Amino acid sequence: MNGAESLVRALVNAGVDVCFANPGTSEMHLVQAIDGVEKMRSVLCLFEGVCTGAADGYARVSGRPATTLLHLGPGLGNGIANLHNARRAATPLINLVGNHALYHVDFDAPLTSDIDTLARNVSSWIKSDSTAASLSRDGMQALCSAMQPRPGSAGQVSTLIIPADACWLEAQQVASATAVPERESVTLQQVEQVAEHIDDRSLILLDKQGLDLAARFSAARIAAKLGCRIAMVTFPARVEGGPGTPLVERLPYFPEHVLASLAGVRHIVLAGAEAPVSFFAYPESESLLVPEGCKVLELAGGHQDVVGALAQLEALLGALDEKPKCYQRQSVDIPQGGLSTAKVARILASQMPEKSIFCGDSGGGGAVYEPAQTAAAHTWLNLTGGSIGQGGPVSIGAAIAAPDARVFALLGDGASMYTNQAFWTQARESLNVTTIIFNNQRYGILETEYRRLGVNEIGERAGSLFSLADPEIDFVGLAASMGVPGRRATNCESFSGALEESLAQSGPFLIEAFV
Amino acid sequence: MNGAESLVRALVNAGVDVCFANPGTSEMHLVQAIDGVEKMRSVLCLFEGVCTGAADGYARVSGRPATTLLHLGPGLGNGIANLHNARRAATPLINLVGNHALYHVDFDAPLTSDIDTLARNVSSWIKSDSTAASLSRDGMQALCSAMQPRPGSAGQVSTLIIPADACWLEAQQVASATAVPERESVTLQQVEQVAEHIDDRSLILLDKQGLDLAARFSAARIAAKLGCRIAMVTFPARVEGGPGTPLVERLPYFPEHVLASLAGVRHIVLAGAEAPVSFFAYPESESLLVPEGCKVLELAGGHQDVVGALAQLEALLGALDEKPKCYQRQSVDIPQGGLSTAKVARILASQMPEKSIFCGDSGGGGAVYEPAQTAAAHTWLNLTGGSIGQGGPVSIGAAIAAPDARVFALLGDGASMYTNQAFWTQARESLNVTTIIFNNQRYGILETEYRRLGVNEIGERAGSLFSLADPEIDFVGLAASMGVPGRRATNCESFSGALEESLAQSGPFLIEAFV
Repeated sequence: MNGAESLVRALVNAGVDVCFANPGTSEMHLVQAIDGVEKMRSVLCLFEGVCTGAADGYARVSGRPATTLLHLGPGLGNGIANLHNARRAATPLINLVGNHALYHVDFDAPLTSDIDTLARNVSSWIKSDSTAASLSRDGMQALCSAMQPRPGSAGQVSTLIIPADACWLEAQQVASATAVPERESVTLQQVEQVAEHIDDRSLILLDKQGLDLAARFSAARIAAKLGCRIAMVTFPARVEGGPGTPLVERLPYFPEHVLASLAGVRHIVLAGAEAPVSFFAYPESESLLVPEGCKVLELAGGHQDVVGALAQLEALLGALDEKPKCYQRQSVDIPQGGLSTAKVARILASQMPEKSIFCGDSGGGGAVYEPAQTAAAHTWLNLTGGSIGQGGPVSIGAAIAAPDARVFALLGDGASMYTNQAFWTQARESLNVTTIIFNNQRYGILETEYRRLGVNEIGERAGSLFSLADPEIDFVGLAASMGVPGRRATNCESFSGALEESLAQSGPFLIEAFV
Repeated sequence: MNGAESLVRALVNAGVDVCFANPGTSEMHLVQAIDGVEKMRSVLCLFEGVCTGAADGYARVSGRPATTLLHLGPGLGNGIANLHNARRAATPLINLVGNHALYHVDFDAPLTSDIDTLARNVSSWIKSDSTAASLSRDGMQALCSAMQPRPGSAGQVSTLIIPADACWLEAQQVASATAVPERESVTLQQVEQVAEHIDDRSLILLDKQGLDLAARFSAARIAAKLGCRIAMVTFPARVEGGPGTPLVERLPYFPEHVLASLAGVRHIVLAGAEAPVSFFAYPESESLLVPEGCKVLELAGGHQDVVGALAQLEALLGALDEKPKCYQRQSVDIPQGGLSTAKVARILASQMPEKSIFCGDSGGGGAVYEPAQTAAAHTWLNLTGGSIGQGGPVSIGAAIAAPDARVFALLGDGASMYTNQAFWTQARESLNVTTIIFNNQRYGILETEYRRLGVNEIGERAGSLFSLADPEIDFVGLAASMGVPGRRATNCESFSGALEESLAQSGPFLIEAFV
């Protein structure tokens, strides 16, 4: 048994049995080990950003980390953007990055680079000097670290940079998984302090574990008791939604809208969330979006036992018998005629199967969120880190983690292009992914942001940097070139028909919606 | 005038007037500045790896750096792989990476990350704390640094990470370009030491400035005088080739082939090159590919005045009147029938226009190198850093730098997929790029490397990680979806016809060659 095999066996024994791979020469012994250890499922992606996004989606849905298999610094580099999103989502994830044998690194061969500095941008755990003897143990430490929630935005991405000779040299043992410490509890004083101040002019802000259903029900009972508000952050990593789930507001995106929404709030109670900040800085607006006179109280950090803290708070406030406000199932009026983002959202809500999974990105997809709440049970996976090109890759991992679900990738036309190689893996693995491209032939968000500069007329040269109209991208043709069938939809009837066609069959499908 | 405008004006005044852009919200003031400064040509790319590869190609052909415009850490991350290649090519290049206003960074908004550590992997110059007052001066320092050759593989990539408020705040001045120091000369002793040892069992190894035509002619006259050999490294950044240029060997790729090629060589004389090393480490082979008993003599480093050093050596050896061996024009037998990589190469050599530019990548394209030498004048741009997905982006920059040339992007099917978004920019800018995909429906190099492990039968699961056959990628459809017309070629006649069709028209074209 060589080091590579010891690592793959240790991972599989510990329940890490999916690898999103784009290997190169320095990973050939890992490929050989994957070939020999049947329980490891390897999924080939044609670009590393698809690997890392898919691993993010897999873990968000299954709760278990997947591995990526990446080729030296450039392979990791191509995966950075979606690792940034995974870090922001606090997704457990293990990167296996092949490196030269360490004795070879000093010779500065063409593919040599400083992989550690690249990894640092996204990883909360890095090791790059494994030997064959240590490799499976290092893999188990990578796993243990990935399973530990951390304060702030440190994330849960482990990156094991593997010298090639650690793979090919002999290993004696397969290490066992290390026990993961329990989540940190909050102190009783912390809960009591919140209990003392919270009232009908408070807002409980949820994120991370604070969005678990148990936590949301606790918050909703507290809200029923006190008449306070509950909201989630703008882009939470995962939300279980649909009829019967607690009504929770969502903070808007632009800073002035957040501040307007928080007007009159006296206390923001953080339950797994950080205090709201502006997504971008603007010349005339504040970074911290807490209204004057409003105090921020931390009940529990995202790495702590938020469910337990809300349960304690609920008990202290005597809210256990309250009836939480929940979404009620509503029938949706099916829109007709010309297509718009809002109409796409309503049609999708009316036709979505139970237990659908939505993978968001930039573009119009966010419009589906509200109508979906009153339509059917579903899981929502957001773009957490603002790095567009996530939704397609995430849909791959989600579909592999939940093979019986219908997964919707809701993508802007611009966003979809960063990682269009996702189509190929969807076809190869026959994944039940319906991709919906909200095609407005532009980077719409940039036009909006540019106008916020106070520019009312967008010049031709600036406008050309926002336009995707010349040439038009034929997304149906693009998906078909990689084996994914699709339809163009220019009105409600054709969109609804295309959706029906997709839902009637297994495997991937694309709908290009002109909005 | 704000900081952004001062920067763009300074760059344009200094002759840096092309920007390969994929901007986001934090770059909106830079977009506004580009909109206002007409001389700056902005070229929109739909993925940042296309921006960075295009900037590399532009500078390799024009000798002048281009800028990229990238969006925070994830945008730079997506550009890393081709920046790695640019670093290895010693290409002058200036990244303009937008960041949050520095006061906003501390609030850790979703798109915040440690951009400096990412930049470090590829950059020889980084600045991230500009103010509006310093920004245009910082841009001129970035330019000055990018123009200075450095020892080893440090590269010439400057990365200016620009706080958003440095763009939007008022600036008073537009800085002027800083004088770039001349290349370092080698000492007379260094030349004399080489002159003392060089003989008919020596090999002069050329790279970087050592591949300038003047340097190659000097080396070829020395070879004619002494009967020694001259070779270039395996993957030089740029070589001017064709009839009338000096005959120079090229070192092979695999370590055992390099060692076989160097058998009997007593001295390797480095002229702009480093001593040969194995591209990858293998269990049974050496890293340093210098045969036993062979000595390495450095005439000049790649950052030094290699042309001058070779001229001095030539004079010392009395070789100035020698007649160098050069490639002679030969007619090519046009092959017929079934297609192969070798046949594609011969057909291409027979039909290529004078002054063509070839952009290599992995895949079969390397086969075109030899037949092109005896066919027509051309420029060859290699994949320098081993990070595949370079050829398509490089072709964009090359075509913009040399609008009258026909540019050929020679791509493996696997390699082309990393940066397939290059097609869109080729179509948008009506670039004279003919992309040839050597489609063997697999990562061929990985199969080869895997067999080198001693595995003669590739298992089904390993084989699936090398195969691009399920689903087959329809490259003609893929290119067409982004506005590039194309043809499939399955035999010599259809390949030759498709090539003729492409050469008869301006603008981009794709030929999918089944080899």
